[in-house]
Formats: sequence, C-alpha cells, structure tokens
Amino acid sequence: MNKSVIALAPMRRLCEKAGADRVSDAAAKELAKVLEEIGAKIAKEALDYAVYTGRKTIKMKDIEIAIKKVIGK
Amino acid sequence: MNKSVIALAPMRRLCEKAGADRVSDAAAKELAKVLEEIGAKIAKEALDYAVYTGRKTIKMKDIEIAIKKVIGK
Repeated sequence: MNKSVIALAPMRRLCEKAGADRVSDAAAKELAKVLEEIGAKIAKEALDYAVYTGRKTIKMKDIEIAIKKVIGK
Repeated sequence: MNKSVIALAPMRRLCEKAGADRVSDAAAKELAKVLEEIGAKIAKEALDYAVYTGRKTIKMKDIEIAIKKVIGK
C-alpha cells in the first residue's frame, strides 16, 4: 500500500475520543485506509459535478451532493 | 463546530488526486467533517467490541468488524 494521505495520529484521537485507552498501529492504519477510500470516492464524485459545470475547482456544493451520492445521507 | 481532528491538507490532497485543480476551504472542511463523523462511528463501534472482550485497547479486528457494521462492507 502507498503511504496514507490521512495520518495516523488523528485516527488515534478519534478512538481515544470514543473512549479507548489505546489503539494498535494496525487498527489506526485500517481506520485511515477506510476513511481514505470513502474520501477518495466522495472527491471523485464531487469532481464529476464540478467538471459538469465547467470547473476544475471543487466547491462546497460539489462535496455536499457527492456525500449524498456516496453515503446516501 | 469544534476544531476538526482530521486536517484539511489531506482533504485537499484527496481531491487533487481525484483530478481537481483546486478545492475551496469550505469543501475541504465539509469533507473532513463527514470523514470524521464516519470515523467516530467506527471507533465507537470498535470500542464496544474491544470492551466486550475485556479490553480498552482497540485492535485491528475491532476496527474490521466495526467497518462491516458501519459501512456494511
């Protein structure tokens, strides 16, 4: 696997905020990996919407619609 | 909103990797926010499994089952 775009420290913080005392390295990496996959999907979807309106800059509204498409939220 | 656990720079990188030229601040923040929400859900679910087996350390297997529960993957 390539180096993650998302760092491990924030993954540990998320787990600690949830109440964990500690987080294994492998667990932090797995969490970073899945969030990165979801993020990449949202980014691709958002770019499709941006490009559709003639932009190559992703704006808030592109991310908002992409989240709805990808997460169904 | 509290300060994000997930930084904005990696959100920009995800969008650039998807092919975007630029990403607005609001878009990067929105992407960080949704990934953080999903990450927090996974972390909480993972901790439930850890605690169930008498640990307060989150391990890889806790994250794996939590991802299945939260993302259905």
